[in-house]
Amino acid sequence: MDSAYCPHFHWAVELIGRRWSGAIMIVLSGGAQRFGEIRAAIPGLSDRLLVERLRELEAEGVVVRAERPHAGGAPLVTYALTAEGLELVPVLEAIGEWAHRRMTRSQRSARV
Amino acid sequence: MDSAYCPHFHWAVELIGRRWSGAIMIVLSGGAQRFGEIRAAIPGLSDRLLVERLRELEAEGVVVRAERPHAGGAPLVTYALTAEGLELVPVLEAIGEWAHRRMTRSQRSARV
Repeated sequence: MDSAYCPHFHWAVELIGRRWSGAIMIVLSGGAQRFGEIRAAIPGLSDRLLVERLRELEAEGVVVRAERPHAGGAPLVTYALTAEGLELVPVLEAIGEWAHRRMTRSQRSARV
Repeated sequence: MDSAYCPHFHWAVELIGRRWSGAIMIVLSGGAQRFGEIRAAIPGLSDRLLVERLRELEAEGVVVRAERPHAGGAPLVTYALTAEGLELVPVLEAIGEWAHRRMTRSQRSARV
């Protein structure tokens, strides 16, 4: 019950729920990815919004940006979840499982 | 990984993350409440937004509104989580625990 009063809970639930944030974290749960890889994994996500979300998640310490020198070209930039961000993966997976159960139930009742 | 592509995951994570939705569900996790009780439990939540969020959560089958006759007056209206809504409570609690650990860690490192 107390969590309802808690500004930290409030902040966390809205961080996760912000448009595309959850999907981006799920994509990064498999390991570090380049900008174009994240975008390709999430249909409907624009470059502009992906930039914005990655900046927010970085500022909150959930995502980390890494630059590695790349032979004969621009440095290779990747994004990965921090240890803190990784802790959220099981929570996001639980939300996905709930959504999936809900869909399966509604499909079943639609057939009755 | 697949969840990132899944519109159902996307819908669920944004439903929970919508402004105040998570806090409302946490308040209702203790049992049915009247409108004024929910509002009183969440500082900063306006009547207008509480009406809007309860309607959305009702439309999504997460919250149910019940009216009982009340001796000598208007019927007593309460809001409660549905069975589906109750399934989300452990997930919301896990988000709260994550936020709390994060806050405790940052307070600890601020003291070093």
